[in-house]
Amino acid sequence: MPPRAQARRAEQLALLSELRHRRFTDPRMGELLEALPEPEVRETLGEVAAANVRETARSYRRATCLPSSFVAELTRVCAHAHEAWIEARKNADFAQFAPHLERIVALKREEADRVGFEDERYDALLDVYEPGARTREIAPMLASLRERLVPIVQRVADGTEAQDGAEDGRRWPVEQQKQLCRRVAAAMGFDFEAGRLDESAHPFCSGIDVGDVRLTTRYDERDAAGALFGVMHETGHGLYEQGLDPERFGTPAGEACSTGMHESQSRLWENQIGRSRPFWEHFFPILCATFPQASEGLDLESWVRRINRVRRSLIRVEADEVTYNLHILLRFELERDLLEQRLAVADLPAAWNAKMEAYLGLTPPDDAQGVLQDIHWSFGGFGYFPTYTLGNLYAAQIHDALRAAFPDLDDMLRHGRLLEIRDWLRDKIHRRGMVLRAPALLEEVTGAPPSAEPFLRYIERKVEALA
Amino acid sequence: MPPRAQARRAEQLALLSELRHRRFTDPRMGELLEALPEPEVRETLGEVAAANVRETARSYRRATCLPSSFVAELTRVCAHAHEAWIEARKNADFAQFAPHLERIVALKREEADRVGFEDERYDALLDVYEPGARTREIAPMLASLRERLVPIVQRVADGTEAQDGAEDGRRWPVEQQKQLCRRVAAAMGFDFEAGRLDESAHPFCSGIDVGDVRLTTRYDERDAAGALFGVMHETGHGLYEQGLDPERFGTPAGEACSTGMHESQSRLWENQIGRSRPFWEHFFPILCATFPQASEGLDLESWVRRINRVRRSLIRVEADEVTYNLHILLRFELERDLLEQRLAVADLPAAWNAKMEAYLGLTPPDDAQGVLQDIHWSFGGFGYFPTYTLGNLYAAQIHDALRAAFPDLDDMLRHGRLLEIRDWLRDKIHRRGMVLRAPALLEEVTGAPPSAEPFLRYIERKVEALA
Repeated sequence: MPPRAQARRAEQLALLSELRHRRFTDPRMGELLEALPEPEVRETLGEVAAANVRETARSYRRATCLPSSFVAELTRVCAHAHEAWIEARKNADFAQFAPHLERIVALKREEADRVGFEDERYDALLDVYEPGARTREIAPMLASLRERLVPIVQRVADGTEAQDGAEDGRRWPVEQQKQLCRRVAAAMGFDFEAGRLDESAHPFCSGIDVGDVRLTTRYDERDAAGALFGVMHETGHGLYEQGLDPERFGTPAGEACSTGMHESQSRLWENQIGRSRPFWEHFFPILCATFPQASEGLDLESWVRRINRVRRSLIRVEADEVTYNLHILLRFELERDLLEQRLAVADLPAAWNAKMEAYLGLTPPDDAQGVLQDIHWSFGGFGYFPTYTLGNLYAAQIHDALRAAFPDLDDMLRHGRLLEIRDWLRDKIHRRGMVLRAPALLEEVTGAPPSAEPFLRYIERKVEALA
Repeated sequence: MPPRAQARRAEQLALLSELRHRRFTDPRMGELLEALPEPEVRETLGEVAAANVRETARSYRRATCLPSSFVAELTRVCAHAHEAWIEARKNADFAQFAPHLERIVALKREEADRVGFEDERYDALLDVYEPGARTREIAPMLASLRERLVPIVQRVADGTEAQDGAEDGRRWPVEQQKQLCRRVAAAMGFDFEAGRLDESAHPFCSGIDVGDVRLTTRYDERDAAGALFGVMHETGHGLYEQGLDPERFGTPAGEACSTGMHESQSRLWENQIGRSRPFWEHFFPILCATFPQASEGLDLESWVRRINRVRRSLIRVEADEVTYNLHILLRFELERDLLEQRLAVADLPAAWNAKMEAYLGLTPPDDAQGVLQDIHWSFGGFGYFPTYTLGNLYAAQIHDALRAAFPDLDDMLRHGRLLEIRDWLRDKIHRRGMVLRAPALLEEVTGAPPSAEPFLRYIERKVEALA
């Protein structure tokens, strides 16, 4: 967006959010919801209708706690903050972003106070992304990760900070990367008649409708793995969106269960499947055929090691499976402190750097590679970060269930048979929409409530195997 | 857009158009407008406020003639028709598009009947793009073009059909084309802080706000002229959008006068300025320095001839200044006939081809290069085409006034001094918004009402000079 467009865009977004809020909070909606108590609906119409009532009532209750003018103001402030964050990051100058972040923290505190919470303000914000989740339930899981991951990092990680293989002089032509990415996404079952794969500065997946799912990635000639795992990640999200029930479009039962569950789908494909040896038994020869020059001297063994290397790193989005959740934990702790005013915005960069040293043994050389690296706080996304870790935990747990359902999973991977995996995920998770909340859905699929154990066992096994 | 996205997008567009229509046709708007008669407002608040009342009342009256459900249905039908047109053009198969076009013609007839008209249905549709214009006023101007242009084409045009120079084996590297295009747009005064220049399959200019004007073009390595004149054209539109009065944003006085007046700005820059010898006395050395290989053996004289070549051509958007308006005339006549049911959709391809033979001496080899080439009918844009020719006529007339205002205009061009031209256009035209309707604004700027004479004299002089 051109710089001079910023002010008008902020006003446009504010207006749209206000109009949307006004319509949704129409008192008639409240009357209808009151006439339809969830338990009665469940008895007469079943679980799908009951879930629609439950989730609409939740959203309605939340929306009616906030005046439309507050919604507009929050949108406006975040629109400006986002632009300021882009500049601040470019200049590695936290002071440019700080006044915006102060305003956002104040508004998010106000939002939490208006919406209400049991234990702490964070609950009211987490609930947006992970309906029904409570900070007291997820905090111990995240803490248990710290206890078991920090020692692993200290034992196995080397001190370099770079993306997989971006430094060894190999050149992976971008056109061939695009071919391979499309081939892998198609093998995973992504329907290109109902979606696209394009390029953007920051990869994303946007699900407009089951018939219109847009994925993006970015290509770097020095590193084929970055784009490829990025595409597997976004395709994981995209399969969720394409797998929603089209008959339920526009209702909660036709939407994804939670942000964490969404992330579980991207991480399962990217990591549990995409970084596994059996997967590459099929795709490594294809990789070599696609990049005859760049792949020279690589064998399956060295490739699998390469894509599973554990490193201390400054940047979350480039982090490996072991260190990733430490990046999240740090943010989760800091944003709780900001919301409860145990930490002032002015002290945030120092607090960030101290935690980076404690968890990862690194200190960012500047704030662009530290506290300014993520977009989330600039759009007011407090409560978002833990869903990344929930996604990782859910993914490991779902992966165990997948292996139980397909005892020959490794053989399927060795033969590139991925569609059965997509269909199983679609059946068990995607089509269920918001019928169950994330912990209940996970229990339905895996037989157990959410836990960090399957993930930690998966990591420990992997680190040992590659030691 | 992916194919399976089509149905939902049609519904989304229909809903948005319906909601917008409902808000705008709120009876309270009618009461306010009735309480504010234009003449009284003019006396008390001046011409700007009066224009706002006049144009809002015009839009309101039109909108209240149409039920919201009709607006939604028209939007829905056009959304599907647009997708069908893309496929039909790809397959050169008019039959794929015909049923959609029949539906659109029926709805546009209904729209005209609901809105009302004096002489013919076309008036009611033309008015959307050229407020206040009447078919009986513009038809004679277009007819006079046919009389004087057809003989010129018969005398000077050769029979080939191709873009400028795309066939001579020269290669113009795309990266350098991009540089030159940005340089020319910047020289014209386009503010890149308040706009962008990107690539797209079909070039356009979208003015979201004076601070956010997006231009696109497409590059072809075989032909530098296509992208460059495309960019000058879109930049002409973009300067209009950037030149609107920001204080009047959201009101008619802060919007462009008419579609024809908008086109005059793009065509003036593209043709009267961009294809002139003095302009190239400055830019030809820059072109040669940018493309040392491709420009080998070209001199100023041959370049100016090359970019002013007159050819019979099948495709409107590739047509030169002489033949362009014959392409428009043909469409104008056909769409009037369709609306009055003097022509059936089934007979349209034959009618198109007959007129092509009569005006341009060519018969399209298939419908993709004939009746299916333009997007306009697929989005229901009946009444749009003549504004292209009005733009050409206005441009020539404004160009005469510009020369009168700057007797040393050729010298300014020889020195690349384009900003004074932008400022003059901004002052005389862009800042005036919709304060005056197009014919009155043209008279204010040029001292004369709209006429085809200045354009025909300009063409005749140019053809003679290059003979």
